[in-house]
Amino acid sequence: MMKQRGILVVVSGFSGVGKGTIMKRLTEKYDNYALSVSATTRDPRAGETDGKDYFFHTAEEFQRMIACDELVEYACYCGNYYGTPRKYVEDQMERGRDVILEIEIQGALKIKAKYPDALLLFVMPPDGETLKKRLSGRNTETPEVIEARLKRASAEADGIESYDYILVNDDLEKCVDELHSLIACQHWQVKRNLDFISRVRGQIKEF
Amino acid sequence: MMKQRGILVVVSGFSGVGKGTIMKRLTEKYDNYALSVSATTRDPRAGETDGKDYFFHTAEEFQRMIACDELVEYACYCGNYYGTPRKYVEDQMERGRDVILEIEIQGALKIKAKYPDALLLFVMPPDGETLKKRLSGRNTETPEVIEARLKRASAEADGIESYDYILVNDDLEKCVDELHSLIACQHWQVKRNLDFISRVRGQIKEF
Repeated sequence: MMKQRGILVVVSGFSGVGKGTIMKRLTEKYDNYALSVSATTRDPRAGETDGKDYFFHTAEEFQRMIACDELVEYACYCGNYYGTPRKYVEDQMERGRDVILEIEIQGALKIKAKYPDALLLFVMPPDGETLKKRLSGRNTETPEVIEARLKRASAEADGIESYDYILVNDDLEKCVDELHSLIACQHWQVKRNLDFISRVRGQIKEF
Repeated sequence: MMKQRGILVVVSGFSGVGKGTIMKRLTEKYDNYALSVSATTRDPRAGETDGKDYFFHTAEEFQRMIACDELVEYACYCGNYYGTPRKYVEDQMERGRDVILEIEIQGALKIKAKYPDALLLFVMPPDGETLKKRLSGRNTETPEVIEARLKRASAEADGIESYDYILVNDDLEKCVDELHSLIACQHWQVKRNLDFISRVRGQIKEF
């Protein structure tokens, strides 16, 4: 079979549900994934590396990228821009690697509109109580921070129906293997195999 | 998570591609599948058992089943009726078992129209040559029989685009595991988890 184009995978989910940990484990365990690095205008935090955690840009640079259509999606949160650089995404897909974007629902919907074959996944906790415990942390945060996190989770609960599949993060290893399996399966979609189908059909028609 | 309704899976594919062997191995290896047994008016062949290979009926009985809407799909080939009894399919799905129908494209399209959530799979050979070898058999068939088989394969090549996924039967064990994985993944579709999503969302909105 011919090398297939990579799949664009959008992973969203509640803050605190463990998306970062899932992505880290997925790329440790399987080597066919490319994690997209977002561009942002916010200041780097302690320990963040340019090009690894984010591509840090000035607002002027970011606006130029928007104007030159160099971002597949972007949004503004709390006065800072965040976006997904197009070149990396398209290069990796062309090379047959599945590209994972960890973004929020507004970005996910923009991606789906631009790339209808993108796979949209939403990570769920097994139940609300589990998420609440994770968000409340180890009592190291102030009640105000915890309160803000819980409010945010509540807002994030809207729009799950726009996604293709859910993933339940109960057991990390199980969740990572299911994520891998879900993405692998999509490579068998008829629409991703039209060249192969057409070739075999041609051979059979000549019988 | 609540017990989910079973998925209706339609498996089609070229004669000679190994559908029967795949089904046999799938049900040996995994116990969550129910294979639907077709009803037919054709005569039993040597070694066929009523209720296992087919449900054998008279034409009068079959027509009564049609009239009473007891079949989810039926068709007439070579003067004989073939159909899928509804009760078994719906009972098994209700019990959470994934039900597999091995039927041809006309039946597959009728199923999709009646059950939009049905999963349509088409089994492909790795290439035309492999299928030709399998259809030509071990030189025990007459050239006429082989010729008829090759012609039929050619006709079967139409309509693959109506299916959701392809499966390539190159290595049997690999193909069976991919089939299992493909079906398992569909249980994570958002549309099959609306109750779970709604419950967790309700819990989170109360934070």
